[in-house]
Amino acid sequence: MSEAVWNVLADKGFGGLTLRAVAAEMGVSTGMLMHYFPAKRALIAHALDLLEKRTAERPRRERPAEGLATVRAMLLDILPLTADDTARNRIWVSSWDLALADDGLATDQADRYTRMRSALRPHLEAARGLGELPAAADPEQLAATAVAFTHGLVVQALFDPGRFPGDLQIAMLDGFLASLARPQRSGAPR
Amino acid sequence: MSEAVWNVLADKGFGGLTLRAVAAEMGVSTGMLMHYFPAKRALIAHALDLLEKRTAERPRRERPAEGLATVRAMLLDILPLTADDTARNRIWVSSWDLALADDGLATDQADRYTRMRSALRPHLEAARGLGELPAAADPEQLAATAVAFTHGLVVQALFDPGRFPGDLQIAMLDGFLASLARPQRSGAPR
Repeated sequence: MSEAVWNVLADKGFGGLTLRAVAAEMGVSTGMLMHYFPAKRALIAHALDLLEKRTAERPRRERPAEGLATVRAMLLDILPLTADDTARNRIWVSSWDLALADDGLATDQADRYTRMRSALRPHLEAARGLGELPAAADPEQLAATAVAFTHGLVVQALFDPGRFPGDLQIAMLDGFLASLARPQRSGAPR
Repeated sequence: MSEAVWNVLADKGFGGLTLRAVAAEMGVSTGMLMHYFPAKRALIAHALDLLEKRTAERPRRERPAEGLATVRAMLLDILPLTADDTARNRIWVSSWDLALADDGLATDQADRYTRMRSALRPHLEAARGLGELPAAADPEQLAATAVAFTHGLVVQALFDPGRFPGDLQIAMLDGFLASLARPQRSGAPR
């Protein structure tokens, strides 16, 4: 059943997640499915749990190094570089419509962003300590900037996969990280 | 009627856009509204047109300067710094669920991103010519990076406006632009 819910989400998003669509994907009757999901809300809750679970359990790159190399591995784990990564990202982006309209779900998403920034921050602090970032770098602000860049790239790549193949996404990430690593030039324009 | 559609979108997103919700917002019957929108699809088409129109007609900052100062003004015009900007961004992000599930709407969104990058690129080229960017900078890739950073910041700020007040969004944008402007350091980590 989870597989059917996932396939409907990857194809149609939360806007297309209905008992009828899941039943059709499973080849069962809508009535049979109502035994498990008596209301639309139960189906959505199952879908969101599934998304959290599959995100937590996704394969991740090794993080052997310190500093910016670790940040790079963490951000590569987010980008839609494989079919599975693309489906998961596509479902996350789709969930934002639902989440923005529901105070509880919006808080969950804000907390998720806080956790992402908190996970990146110690590695940005280490990068600063290693001299990979300017001494004046603010790890909390850079964590928010790195998450912003990565999620904005996810959205562009989802809409235009032909224009953003994996090697371009990786080159953009490396260019972004290299720009953070540059020493401050006096008189940068404001 | 457009005002009612806009208010429903800003509050509930495309997922909550129904004839019933718009009728309730207008204080009329759903039957009366079906005269204008015989099908849900007509209501969605009207909503998307309205979003395009209000985006095209939004007030914009003057663009007196060349190079990165112009890029800065263009990106500031995107960020959710006012209530109107916030509503418009919130509706755009909500529309992505719909757009990802519909080939025609997905192409429209990919084209919109192409236009955003094309609008930024000449100013990034000018910035390079002015010496504001490294000589090796790739304006097309930097345009995609700037759009990614800006839209990713939009999403984080929409979910957590208390954590991302306007002055922080502007500081993050200025930090991002300053990092692009730094001269390349040899041995930046990969």
